[in-house]
Amino acid sequence: MKIAIAQLNFHIGNFEGNLSKMLQAVETAKTQGADLVCFSELATVGYPPRDFLEFEDFIELAEHSVQELAKAAKGIAIVVGSPTKNPVIEGKDLYNSAYFLADGRVQQMQHKTLLPTYDIFDEYRYFEPANEWRVVEYQGKRIALTVCEDIWNIGNENPLYTVCPLDELVPQKPDFILNLSASPFSYKQANTRIHTVKANVQRYGIPMFYVNHCGAQTELIFDGGSLVVSPDGKVFDELPYFEECIRTYELEAVVKGGRENEQPKEKMTLIHDALLLGIRDYFRKLGFKRAILGLSGGIDSAVVAVLAARALGPDNVRVVLMPSQFSSDHSIHDARKLAENLGTQYDIIPIEGIYQSYIEALKPHFWSQPFNIAEENLQARARGNLLMALSNKFGNILLNTSNKSEVAVGYGTLYGDMCGGLSVIGDLYKTEVFALARYMNKDGELIPENIITKPPSAELRPNQKDSDSLPEYEALDEILYEYIEGRFSPQDIIERGYDEKLVRRVLRLVNINEFKRHQMAPVLRVSEKAFGMGRRMPIVGKYLA
Amino acid sequence: MKIAIAQLNFHIGNFEGNLSKMLQAVETAKTQGADLVCFSELATVGYPPRDFLEFEDFIELAEHSVQELAKAAKGIAIVVGSPTKNPVIEGKDLYNSAYFLADGRVQQMQHKTLLPTYDIFDEYRYFEPANEWRVVEYQGKRIALTVCEDIWNIGNENPLYTVCPLDELVPQKPDFILNLSASPFSYKQANTRIHTVKANVQRYGIPMFYVNHCGAQTELIFDGGSLVVSPDGKVFDELPYFEECIRTYELEAVVKGGRENEQPKEKMTLIHDALLLGIRDYFRKLGFKRAILGLSGGIDSAVVAVLAARALGPDNVRVVLMPSQFSSDHSIHDARKLAENLGTQYDIIPIEGIYQSYIEALKPHFWSQPFNIAEENLQARARGNLLMALSNKFGNILLNTSNKSEVAVGYGTLYGDMCGGLSVIGDLYKTEVFALARYMNKDGELIPENIITKPPSAELRPNQKDSDSLPEYEALDEILYEYIEGRFSPQDIIERGYDEKLVRRVLRLVNINEFKRHQMAPVLRVSEKAFGMGRRMPIVGKYLA
Repeated sequence: MKIAIAQLNFHIGNFEGNLSKMLQAVETAKTQGADLVCFSELATVGYPPRDFLEFEDFIELAEHSVQELAKAAKGIAIVVGSPTKNPVIEGKDLYNSAYFLADGRVQQMQHKTLLPTYDIFDEYRYFEPANEWRVVEYQGKRIALTVCEDIWNIGNENPLYTVCPLDELVPQKPDFILNLSASPFSYKQANTRIHTVKANVQRYGIPMFYVNHCGAQTELIFDGGSLVVSPDGKVFDELPYFEECIRTYELEAVVKGGRENEQPKEKMTLIHDALLLGIRDYFRKLGFKRAILGLSGGIDSAVVAVLAARALGPDNVRVVLMPSQFSSDHSIHDARKLAENLGTQYDIIPIEGIYQSYIEALKPHFWSQPFNIAEENLQARARGNLLMALSNKFGNILLNTSNKSEVAVGYGTLYGDMCGGLSVIGDLYKTEVFALARYMNKDGELIPENIITKPPSAELRPNQKDSDSLPEYEALDEILYEYIEGRFSPQDIIERGYDEKLVRRVLRLVNINEFKRHQMAPVLRVSEKAFGMGRRMPIVGKYLA
Repeated sequence: MKIAIAQLNFHIGNFEGNLSKMLQAVETAKTQGADLVCFSELATVGYPPRDFLEFEDFIELAEHSVQELAKAAKGIAIVVGSPTKNPVIEGKDLYNSAYFLADGRVQQMQHKTLLPTYDIFDEYRYFEPANEWRVVEYQGKRIALTVCEDIWNIGNENPLYTVCPLDELVPQKPDFILNLSASPFSYKQANTRIHTVKANVQRYGIPMFYVNHCGAQTELIFDGGSLVVSPDGKVFDELPYFEECIRTYELEAVVKGGRENEQPKEKMTLIHDALLLGIRDYFRKLGFKRAILGLSGGIDSAVVAVLAARALGPDNVRVVLMPSQFSSDHSIHDARKLAENLGTQYDIIPIEGIYQSYIEALKPHFWSQPFNIAEENLQARARGNLLMALSNKFGNILLNTSNKSEVAVGYGTLYGDMCGGLSVIGDLYKTEVFALARYMNKDGELIPENIITKPPSAELRPNQKDSDSLPEYEALDEILYEYIEGRFSPQDIIERGYDEKLVRRVLRLVNINEFKRHQMAPVLRVSEKAFGMGRRMPIVGKYLA
């Protein structure tokens, strides 16, 4: 039997687009001689469909797609993920299912058992878990269908569930396991995924074909990297990351094994490529082509400009330099140099006149209070407004350039530099932004070296440096990582050797700035714990605040 | 036996504050002669604690609070909601539990079985459901402990769960049911809640003491209205809404029943009082006293100004009039009149100079394009910046004044009139804002009549009216309600008699404006389906877009 993995980029709610892409893939699989082609989880509707699942109309459109696919299942079997209605009144109204289509009709369904409801996942919000497990018989082979999380209760120290669907399916003697996934990227995820698939194959002694979704949906980047793992526990094949791919395998060869075909996984390469896909799909799926962003001469906006130019093409990126009386000459020079290196359009719009008009209007109401955060924020907001005005005038999307460290401690201006439709590097700590900049410069100086080496500054008052109000980024980022990714207590973090006052100050800053993050653009997720849908915090919370 | 209901206002993560409030309540209950006092769900930590539950430190602080309460359980039993650790490795790490404390120690725990994971609820994200049910025996009585959702699978047509914990507890012959709740307000919720409690009492034939949380946590307003329902199915007592209350009942009298003590529930009164609590708690729990808002002369900002003045006191509210060349004389006059009626400080800051400075700076970059949304938004953003500057200078919180209709269709300016720390009326459709304004004027003209009767306008270009770009609000609001609250399909809505083109246009506007709502302030929730944490939509979704 020949099995095709179709690793495709779906679009949430784009029924027509997803269906026609799958119909084409069925043809491709046929030309590759496949007997069976497998798509990813919830392929008809795109993942994650979120509360669209609560619309009956939406479910019926998905059912229609499945019926159309079934018609195409002639001379080839199709396995596709799609929501199904739960006919029982008690319990949730839907299942998250794998359909088995053959001979022009739906032959069988296997519902998902383990419903992830942590971090970015909300599946128990919508779905009832399966309570029946039955292998599919096709062309003399027995197939165990599983959906994503169904295989994730194995190979980890703190299993989240009390059942394992494969414990039910394997006694029915399947020849292989199919897993339909929509597993989002983080820079550690590909290794974890391989570990998990191997743990299953080793436990059950049968090969697995693991089919992942590939494509970005707002903040979530599904990275592909679909897997074929042989019973000997070796990765027989690993599909490319961040691109679509259809590939067919002879089951016999996979069973035989002995082939090890893993790709290298370097953190900065993965992050770089993930962010390109994240930007590209955000624009394409919303029907936009052109981006705009402010270039300050600092490292954050420099890195975002490079990513935007690479993702969308330099002709589709407009950068704007908005110097004030506090901007240093080198900032303007460095920013201009970068725009020239990238070949993007750039404009210079000084903000001093606008800033002065605000100060003028506010003078009678500021009651001679000293210069403070209010005046600093006015500059950031004047810039935000200029960028939004250009965005509104020409229909570009403004890219946000905040990094994770500043977002964490609230070192950004709401409605100012926090403006933007998409936060590109909001899941990269400042030290990671530096590493990414160096990675970008590995084949020559694209980002002017001075941007990377000078001390970071917001340039909102004379001779300002980030280090005036923030700890050094090395220490800050480590403490943030322990707290945000690690969920460690202040006491735990202090015990790792950090200064108690510093730790308490940083954690307090994180927690009192939840209100700012609540209004932030969606952040392209590249870590295991990004700000946004995967981290849900109360704003009025008093803990460590 | 005498049973005290302690309906209190807790604060998320404020362990010390919550504990000392409960210790005081224990004393009060004792003076009322109570044998047992019952607090609400997760009272130690405040509800909803959200992802703080993932911090082991946070759970240990809750355990400490329970131990302290246990020490106070002398001469009185205490029932309190708190998270507990699940000792089994498989499954989620926590339970959402009701503790029974007596004789100075923890006597028993009953974990929650039904974990709501819909709308604003995320409980399956954190908690394992109970798999053991045991009544508590105390002073010769048998008590069935339940936590909030545990009683909600009864009395509705589409039960979400396949088990009912009371089906397990009632065979153990309890004398009464205690329910520890954190049930948030919507203007329909009090009636639904009474229906549900009665359905349980009628099904099981024993009385119920239903203890609700009372207080706002960011967007969620917990309204109190705790209940005592007798076996005859009558509401023996209903505690006040939107305020703390400790009241003790003789079990014999409740069992005997025959008393009907329901309070009137009028939609606008409930909404009005809910919003006051919502504003008040947002400020108090964040440690702020003063609010600022822009007063345009329109109805939305007028209603928010009244609510703010009533919630915080007129001395703590500053309103700012920011006329432009497009503002009508009557707008300024009406706004000033309202500020005078309320007795709040008001300032007038014309924006024309600021607007012109933007136009000046942008002229070389706008390439003689015609006046459009870019220029309109610049005005809204200049106002947003002025308000934020004053907010930053004086430490006030900016209140957002957007209504649900405009938020739904994206008729608001991101970083402009969408600025603000809290959206006060973002869950009220425009027609409901009018109704609330009339309710506010029921005892005399507080809001100048002209504000209520004139046609709504954003006044961002000459002679603009909302009706130039939006349908009439009566039709718009009905269509929005069918789609947002009702989750009906375009076809369903059209079949109810609405124009097809209009329906498709409105639904498309709702769906393509998800990106704006993503960056919006938290919205005080007063309906069954508010924008925010209870409605989770993909931004790049293509459905009806």
